[in-house]
Amino acid sequence: MATGTLPLVFSRHKVPLTLYLFIYMGLLHCQQFIIPFKAPSDCRAEQFFDISSLSCVSCGPNQRRRLSCVCQTGYQTLTTDKMSITCQQCPIDKPAVTKDGFGCIRCPGAVSDEGNCKCPPGSFLVERDINGNLLDEARCETCNGDSPASTVPSSSGDRYTSCQIFEGSFVYFKIEKNANTCLYYCIQSAWFLENLYSSSAACLVFSNLTACQALGNMCVMNMHSFSGVSTDACGLFNTIFRSKASLSSTQDISYWRANLPWLYYGDEPGLASRVLQTDPVPTGFSFRGTKKNTDIRLLAAVYNVRGEFLRWEPVGGKNLQLCPQPATKQAAAFSFGTAYQESVKLLGSHPEPLFYDVFMDLGGGENPKLLPLPTLVLNQQYSGRFINQESMRNWYLSRRMFLIDMLSGREKSLSSLPKVIRVASSLVPRTQEGQVFPPLMVVTYRDVPITDINTQTVSTSFAVEYEMDQSEARMKTDTALGVMGGVAVLYSLLKTVSWKRRISSTDTLVKFLFFYAGDLANVFFIVTVGTGLYWLIFYKAQQFVSVLLPLPPQEEKLVTYVGCAFALKAVQFLHKLFIQVSVDVFLIDWERPRSKTSRTVQAAGEMKREPSPVSIWRTYFVANEWNEIQTIRKISPTFQIMAVLFFLEVLGFSSLALRDPWTTLQRPSEAYTPSYSLTLRYGLAATLWLCIGLLQVIFFTVFYEHFVEDKIRQFVDLCSISNESLCGQRGLLPNTDIQTFQVALSNLLRMQYDRIQDSISRRNRPSRLTDTTMGHFSEPQCKAYHTMNHFLASVIDHAHPDMDYIVKDKLMFERVIGMEFLEPSEKSIFYNDEAHSFSNVLFYGNEATLLIFDTLFFCVVDLGSQSFILAAVLTYLQQMIFSFVRNALGRRNLAYKTLVDKRFLI
Amino acid sequence: MATGTLPLVFSRHKVPLTLYLFIYMGLLHCQQFIIPFKAPSDCRAEQFFDISSLSCVSCGPNQRRRLSCVCQTGYQTLTTDKMSITCQQCPIDKPAVTKDGFGCIRCPGAVSDEGNCKCPPGSFLVERDINGNLLDEARCETCNGDSPASTVPSSSGDRYTSCQIFEGSFVYFKIEKNANTCLYYCIQSAWFLENLYSSSAACLVFSNLTACQALGNMCVMNMHSFSGVSTDACGLFNTIFRSKASLSSTQDISYWRANLPWLYYGDEPGLASRVLQTDPVPTGFSFRGTKKNTDIRLLAAVYNVRGEFLRWEPVGGKNLQLCPQPATKQAAAFSFGTAYQESVKLLGSHPEPLFYDVFMDLGGGENPKLLPLPTLVLNQQYSGRFINQESMRNWYLSRRMFLIDMLSGREKSLSSLPKVIRVASSLVPRTQEGQVFPPLMVVTYRDVPITDINTQTVSTSFAVEYEMDQSEARMKTDTALGVMGGVAVLYSLLKTVSWKRRISSTDTLVKFLFFYAGDLANVFFIVTVGTGLYWLIFYKAQQFVSVLLPLPPQEEKLVTYVGCAFALKAVQFLHKLFIQVSVDVFLIDWERPRSKTSRTVQAAGEMKREPSPVSIWRTYFVANEWNEIQTIRKISPTFQIMAVLFFLEVLGFSSLALRDPWTTLQRPSEAYTPSYSLTLRYGLAATLWLCIGLLQVIFFTVFYEHFVEDKIRQFVDLCSISNESLCGQRGLLPNTDIQTFQVALSNLLRMQYDRIQDSISRRNRPSRLTDTTMGHFSEPQCKAYHTMNHFLASVIDHAHPDMDYIVKDKLMFERVIGMEFLEPSEKSIFYNDEAHSFSNVLFYGNEATLLIFDTLFFCVVDLGSQSFILAAVLTYLQQMIFSFVRNALGRRNLAYKTLVDKRFLI
Repeated sequence: MATGTLPLVFSRHKVPLTLYLFIYMGLLHCQQFIIPFKAPSDCRAEQFFDISSLSCVSCGPNQRRRLSCVCQTGYQTLTTDKMSITCQQCPIDKPAVTKDGFGCIRCPGAVSDEGNCKCPPGSFLVERDINGNLLDEARCETCNGDSPASTVPSSSGDRYTSCQIFEGSFVYFKIEKNANTCLYYCIQSAWFLENLYSSSAACLVFSNLTACQALGNMCVMNMHSFSGVSTDACGLFNTIFRSKASLSSTQDISYWRANLPWLYYGDEPGLASRVLQTDPVPTGFSFRGTKKNTDIRLLAAVYNVRGEFLRWEPVGGKNLQLCPQPATKQAAAFSFGTAYQESVKLLGSHPEPLFYDVFMDLGGGENPKLLPLPTLVLNQQYSGRFINQESMRNWYLSRRMFLIDMLSGREKSLSSLPKVIRVASSLVPRTQEGQVFPPLMVVTYRDVPITDINTQTVSTSFAVEYEMDQSEARMKTDTALGVMGGVAVLYSLLKTVSWKRRISSTDTLVKFLFFYAGDLANVFFIVTVGTGLYWLIFYKAQQFVSVLLPLPPQEEKLVTYVGCAFALKAVQFLHKLFIQVSVDVFLIDWERPRSKTSRTVQAAGEMKREPSPVSIWRTYFVANEWNEIQTIRKISPTFQIMAVLFFLEVLGFSSLALRDPWTTLQRPSEAYTPSYSLTLRYGLAATLWLCIGLLQVIFFTVFYEHFVEDKIRQFVDLCSISNESLCGQRGLLPNTDIQTFQVALSNLLRMQYDRIQDSISRRNRPSRLTDTTMGHFSEPQCKAYHTMNHFLASVIDHAHPDMDYIVKDKLMFERVIGMEFLEPSEKSIFYNDEAHSFSNVLFYGNEATLLIFDTLFFCVVDLGSQSFILAAVLTYLQQMIFSFVRNALGRRNLAYKTLVDKRFLI
Repeated sequence: MATGTLPLVFSRHKVPLTLYLFIYMGLLHCQQFIIPFKAPSDCRAEQFFDISSLSCVSCGPNQRRRLSCVCQTGYQTLTTDKMSITCQQCPIDKPAVTKDGFGCIRCPGAVSDEGNCKCPPGSFLVERDINGNLLDEARCETCNGDSPASTVPSSSGDRYTSCQIFEGSFVYFKIEKNANTCLYYCIQSAWFLENLYSSSAACLVFSNLTACQALGNMCVMNMHSFSGVSTDACGLFNTIFRSKASLSSTQDISYWRANLPWLYYGDEPGLASRVLQTDPVPTGFSFRGTKKNTDIRLLAAVYNVRGEFLRWEPVGGKNLQLCPQPATKQAAAFSFGTAYQESVKLLGSHPEPLFYDVFMDLGGGENPKLLPLPTLVLNQQYSGRFINQESMRNWYLSRRMFLIDMLSGREKSLSSLPKVIRVASSLVPRTQEGQVFPPLMVVTYRDVPITDINTQTVSTSFAVEYEMDQSEARMKTDTALGVMGGVAVLYSLLKTVSWKRRISSTDTLVKFLFFYAGDLANVFFIVTVGTGLYWLIFYKAQQFVSVLLPLPPQEEKLVTYVGCAFALKAVQFLHKLFIQVSVDVFLIDWERPRSKTSRTVQAAGEMKREPSPVSIWRTYFVANEWNEIQTIRKISPTFQIMAVLFFLEVLGFSSLALRDPWTTLQRPSEAYTPSYSLTLRYGLAATLWLCIGLLQVIFFTVFYEHFVEDKIRQFVDLCSISNESLCGQRGLLPNTDIQTFQVALSNLLRMQYDRIQDSISRRNRPSRLTDTTMGHFSEPQCKAYHTMNHFLASVIDHAHPDMDYIVKDKLMFERVIGMEFLEPSEKSIFYNDEAHSFSNVLFYGNEATLLIFDTLFFCVVDLGSQSFILAAVLTYLQQMIFSFVRNALGRRNLAYKTLVDKRFLI
């Protein structure tokens, strides 16, 4: 039965060692399992189709062709190492042949037509002693109650009681009366009761092919389970299997004994992985091109419950797939790479179970080859343990399966209604990896107690999955994460140092953590999008099969990573949001000194041209515009959502995330639609979102802002127009155009600023409470505003020698690492900033963060709900809410810091 | 065969008139067609199951039970009016029975076991003379070439040649040799060749039940077509049918003759509508509640091609629905009210056609009743015309159908491959109206020439449709359209008059057409949405079946109306858009005179409080804000789209538009999904859009604008703040708060305004060309601006007695009809306008138009594409484009009219 138990058998029967070596080789080289395909019609006239070995067998000399070859009358059967038999004429002193055909014996009475001894009615024939040794002369004995007797039904089916002792040809084998025919919540199965003994006996003693198959089927109906005691169907089968050890194997497969069905692989630990993973199937699959080959052709040898071989059937449609589906859909199950799943509620009667031995058709032209597929029965018990639900090392593979058994659950007679039916409730052929390994059929049976046979429904499912060892990919992902995570630490440190140099704060660690959250989020994002994109490209675009999608349980890690990326990105986003709505802003109306000159001009009497003196309305205008560009972005977020929806749901890009290797966008309704792969959905959505976002950024920065409207530029221009053309050129310095600067304030300047600001806010608060309905701001506010404005304007006019400044360009290296080298110890430093880096305190300057945050938000919602539309709607809401929050808080902050009344920030 | 031909038969055979009255009553009262349901197992021991009448028939005295009752040997058959027979012993001088069993005769030779005369081999029996009269003594004659002979195959199937003349019992009936067995592009059908004569003869002469059915089946295979010449299958059948007139009818149905299958209804014009529309099915259907009853139970009597009755089968799944679908889906076909459609490509062989007589099971407990369903074969030819494709008046209903016929297309022998197969390519049971009328089976057959029987596929479809007479609904719709269209004319006229009074223009007719376009669009919109909503509510929410959805062809009118509504609304929208972007705007800085006083104060030396003189920046600020509120709306258009998408696609409201009566939102994947109804889609989308829009308007006007932000109010407030608190209260008049007015200008004032505006624009244009990069506007512009401002401010200050104004409230009636009664002849009139009617030149004041336009745009795209997502995306694009256009043109117009440089309108 298995190599582990074989040595015991060897030592007793002294079979040459070489034989076992060969068997062992068969173990190491799984391709030895391949058998030639023979149908009954392929057998020549002098051959018969051996339903056990599924091959054509010729009858030898002195043999007749019946169901199998048997020796002619008067010839004893000699066994050889292989499955064929040899016939030898019995000697004259022992002219009769024993009932099992393997010995010659003298008869006490007459010889029957078949050449066996006959006993008178009421007595039975005894050919062996109690130890199983053949007697020289047979005896006819009558039954008595004391002998070691048992009730044995005849193999023909009509039961008779005798006290005959059945003896096997090799081991003494006794079928006990209390054999376990009790199944299913102790329903005494009528079928088992009637057939278990007779089949076992006929199989053991007469090597009856059909009886052996019937016994095997009973074991299969028992879900291949055996308790170790040899009293249930599988136990009996195994006893017989062991007893036929010397008959050697069929088709050169050690687990397949002559005349017996092949029900088990060996039970030695680790055999399952050797069978499943050592040798690939010698068939290449290719998705595209001239050699397109995606069909997995499975063949099944079908037996009925009585053990008769019915036919060869191609698997699909009518047999293993019970769901009534259009043929086009069902065919998808055996298209390589397509994850298939169908479920159905069964109704009505399936009178007799059919048994399937499943093979993979390897093709091969004139000599077609078959690869037997192992089955994993998840309910299979081995001494009370569900070993097949444990790790692969303990798996005990088997062969042969059934789908619905309404027979064995009938209790009293075979025509009664079944009390319980047993159904293969899920059936999952799996294949593994690029180099395609033998598919494994995974079966789960379920017992359904019957209450009303006519209306009751039973649900069952049939699924096909493709599995690949993902440990290498997982390792690569983890390596990438580790390396990039390390780099992110350095980068965050750099940013923290830079920040620390600018602002003297004690919360350095907190700041570092915020920076690191953002960078780590980016790392997670890059790795996960990379993974998704990898599968999208390599799975969907491959011509020859080299990668298979990760199964849903293997995707959990990716989902976790995406969750991490989203959470960290959210932290970064909220942090930036907080910084933006608490930033210090003051609008200096720097021209005040010059407007005095302007007034002088006016005083000079030129009344026609009357330039208005600088008005507070100018500040209002600028503040109002500043308020409006708070949430301007480099893309249109709503267009982004609509475009993504359009591609995914209208153009049908979402079909790319289906678990099959096709790249068709629009699937016809009659085609099978597999389930979605989370990995592909993520890869697809994130890539699409990023691509459309990038295109939008390019469109807006290259085209729209140049030819239509650039809100940021407009703001800068507005500030420049406010100069009222009094300067020759726009810039702060003479003969320059640069109007925007990054300023490193000297400590003295900042302290002065803070002091005035502080006095404003102290005065500001109560006044805001008492007087908010009146136009403009209150008296003290107004005063404070003018103080601040005057102070800052005078600084810009170099009026304070202790708070002077210089204007310079940043060094290239300073730009790259985003850190300034000069300390603004005595003089403040104005760095020219043509890149409008002030937009960093607006949404505009943080497009990357926002885009990635939106992408992750969209993907996370989609991963959770599998609905792109819901994700789009929620992303829109999210954008709207954050934009509203940013606007409201930003407006409040602006009013508070610039002392411009809220009513002008509209 | 049909009442039209019956009188001919009567006069010849003198059957009492009352009988035909009864038949005629059967015609008027279609419920008389109802027959009791009997299965073969229901027949008692002395009865047999008559496969023609589908009832149990008892054998009378002197009868034996065979396939049907026949007279015992030596008894002649006497026919009665009904289907049963009477047997009378033959007189002693005529001891033998004729071959047809209906007469007694003397024999020239021996009498066979069956009681007929026997002739020696080589001769044949002649029982009647050439006119069909029975001879007293039969003759045995040998064939000779001159006699009026024909070749007649025996009914048993092995052919023999004789020259016997077959005679019917009532009419002389001669089967000619050139009977039309040539079918299908002149393929000589082996089946017809072999069986047409024999079946006809056996049916006519021996009233052989099976033979009659087989003949009928051949007629069915010929698609019920006959040419009038009685040489094809249907012609032969009709000849026999007429000849059996005196045998009267089966089951009290005049079209169903004893021993014959029921193949045709009568051919009198108008019969079809009487059969289909006179009497409802006596079964009520109800969608909800305890008496929920939606199952249509159909039963079919199944015959094989040889005319044998096989079984009763419930229709569904295995027989009429050829598509392999899960049972849950297939069951939906017979759930009342669910439009069902399935198509499949057939493959493989269907060896023998089966023939179905379809009945509706009316239930009825112990005495179940059946209602025979009429069939409409669209291919049926009647003397070369396809009458069933003409109007219902000409329809010629039939019964019995087949699905696939691979038999009659075999040419030489029955074992050859068919050259052509005939398939029922579509099968549509239709039912009609609330009071459910008998379903009609509509069959279309298709001939498929066979090239490769193993791989060739044939597509076929099975659909169930429910039809209701929509003429009443259509009339109601048209009435509503007419009445409301008339009212719209009046309303548009009123608006035109009102407009004409305000503006003296010559384009009155054009204006009227624009107004009418808008109003007519509203009428179409109301009617179509009303229709959609009507179906949505009455079809989806009905408990007892009272309305059925319009079929797709009946929906065309609605689609046209929606198209009209959209086109007209688009005209109105574009018209409004044009008006808005060309409106005259001028911002008066009215405080200038007072700022002089303020300056005096300043001159008086109070230097601390130095109120800035009125600045041009204030005008900029106001103009900028005005520019910004151009496209503000009372709803958020993007939120609108997202919310509609969310309801339709995420919550699954779109399921409400499916053509079935259920209101479940989420359908399980194994359930059948019918097609969408355009009417329901439109009703659903428009209603949802309007409801969400309305909710948004309520939310924004009641909550958001009060508690968060009201852009229009902010603008008005801004203008008021610009007063700088110099007035005691905000209003124009002392002690009022009203700041907004509708102004009826006197002609003088308007002329003056136009004159100045004209001079501005004349000066403006060249200056804009030469000088647009400089800050502010150019010198002449500036001058013109000040002139205009000064003029208008002085008017407001009552400085021009000839252009004075009065302030008053509008009368209630003036408000209601939107027209002012007073002519501003001498003084201009300032009407107080608290409702901010200035928003009418903004998007804000035209929310209704915009909302309806968006709704129609969304619905039109959806009706065209059946995709809510595409509609949403395109609606978004449409909104974005029009908003952009409105903004850009409005900004240009504002800059042009108010003389504020574009750079300040940001």
